[in-house]
Amino acid sequence: MDKIKTSDYRVDKAVKLKDTATLTMLSSTEDKLKERLRDTRDKLSKLQDVFYAHNKYSVLICLQGMDTAGKDSLIREVFQDFNSRGVVVHSFKTPTFKEKQHDYLWRHYLALPDRGKFGVFNRTHYENVLVTRVHPEYIVGENIPGINSIEDIDDKFWESRFEHINNFEKHLVANGTIIFKFFLHLSKDEQKNRLLRRLTRQDKNWKFSPGDLDERELWDQYQNCYEQAINKTSNKDAPWYIIPSDNKKAARAIVADILYDELKTIKEVQYPTLDPSIKSQIEHYKKILNEE
Amino acid sequence: MDKIKTSDYRVDKAVKLKDTATLTMLSSTEDKLKERLRDTRDKLSKLQDVFYAHNKYSVLICLQGMDTAGKDSLIREVFQDFNSRGVVVHSFKTPTFKEKQHDYLWRHYLALPDRGKFGVFNRTHYENVLVTRVHPEYIVGENIPGINSIEDIDDKFWESRFEHINNFEKHLVANGTIIFKFFLHLSKDEQKNRLLRRLTRQDKNWKFSPGDLDERELWDQYQNCYEQAINKTSNKDAPWYIIPSDNKKAARAIVADILYDELKTIKEVQYPTLDPSIKSQIEHYKKILNEE
Repeated sequence: MDKIKTSDYRVDKAVKLKDTATLTMLSSTEDKLKERLRDTRDKLSKLQDVFYAHNKYSVLICLQGMDTAGKDSLIREVFQDFNSRGVVVHSFKTPTFKEKQHDYLWRHYLALPDRGKFGVFNRTHYENVLVTRVHPEYIVGENIPGINSIEDIDDKFWESRFEHINNFEKHLVANGTIIFKFFLHLSKDEQKNRLLRRLTRQDKNWKFSPGDLDERELWDQYQNCYEQAINKTSNKDAPWYIIPSDNKKAARAIVADILYDELKTIKEVQYPTLDPSIKSQIEHYKKILNEE
Repeated sequence: MDKIKTSDYRVDKAVKLKDTATLTMLSSTEDKLKERLRDTRDKLSKLQDVFYAHNKYSVLICLQGMDTAGKDSLIREVFQDFNSRGVVVHSFKTPTFKEKQHDYLWRHYLALPDRGKFGVFNRTHYENVLVTRVHPEYIVGENIPGINSIEDIDDKFWESRFEHINNFEKHLVANGTIIFKFFLHLSKDEQKNRLLRRLTRQDKNWKFSPGDLDERELWDQYQNCYEQAINKTSNKDAPWYIIPSDNKKAARAIVADILYDELKTIKEVQYPTLDPSIKSQIEHYKKILNEE
């Protein structure tokens, strides 16, 4: 199979989503992709164990994508071999009353992974410049000083949100969080196929909501908001990766490879060693136990 | 392999720990035990997916045991096949300043699993009648009204803690939490073996702390506190299970079997079905998509 090169997917200059592939050019069979994922996730879970023991870095994995882009199944597959102790998945839904009584980053702050752990945000703080940008009436509901109607929400408002988000991430990175931001890039046609499948397969149709079709009608607006958000917030410390997601198995294999290839380069992450003052006493401690 | 009978491990009358097996009587090979665990955890992870979709019950799994009893590796093995989305592990360490500024159940309350999820407490609210009972000076540090010195902590104090804990769990059960409490029952000899191994194996010796030996010296006091806590708080709604844990593979297989055998009996937990008012419109929604 072709080699997956992290840099092929990382956004390091301005992108146009409509010119970015939703279908991978990797030449491979479905079986090869599954095999590759199995191999990478095994290595990734072993690396996670070292991160856990080392206890200095945390890893924050942000997943965004249109409805049916495959976020849930990607989480299931990529983290399959992890020790449950080391990974925390947080799915952000509509904010609650209490959450809206705080600044919009607050609930994300609370859910950040502990040192040594991997945190997965299934939908993320970026919804604050995506769904709320397509539906600005939600912003009015946040009781922000100076924002009393939709008319108060101008370009400067969104610019300042991008700045808040960049500063938030910069602070996390400076304090030991490694951030990956994945946009699962889906074509509108493939979403249609997946929604039709959801409607057709009786065991899956409880997942359907008529609201899915309403949001689909806003497809182009969402794509514009995604494009701007990605371009404004992809940087060396907290890069966005655009993952072609019309083929789910390929998307999962690419995400796993990017995580592993980037994380393995952090040579500082190692199993700890015993404090030398305790190490020098090991024979003494063994004696205590043996002579009980 | 012998059938694992849930009732063999459940505490439904007063027990004496010293008369309770730390080594399983199951006749089986290590390979058979591994195979059995693989089989059960696969079924359990499928069942978890139904709990997640059903979204009414949560499952709280409480793990207690002496140091080296195998809590961490049991978590790794039993929940190996779970979708990371569906299980949250919380390891309780020494309470922080902020946590001690609240009643002792507060931090456990905050960590309870969402509906549809499995939560694992690695050490639990029971530490409040275990480690703090062996070290009553910790209780004095909690700033509880009326408790100004160790002398203020009498039998009535512990009786009231058992009552708080029983009421806390009763409330959770009444509101949709299914509780399992596992005591990983280890012999003092096997702990010695495991501590010596930790000291001998260089790649594992960073896990050793001289404090492990201090706590080991208090073995009998811990066993007494465990015995009383288990006898005072095992009941039909939130039973304790005593798991012979001198053989780690057997302990894991038994825990997985108990979880699966008990949870599969809740026939109400099923995949949801689509709302009939939406279901009747499926052809209409398909048409919208197909005629785009």
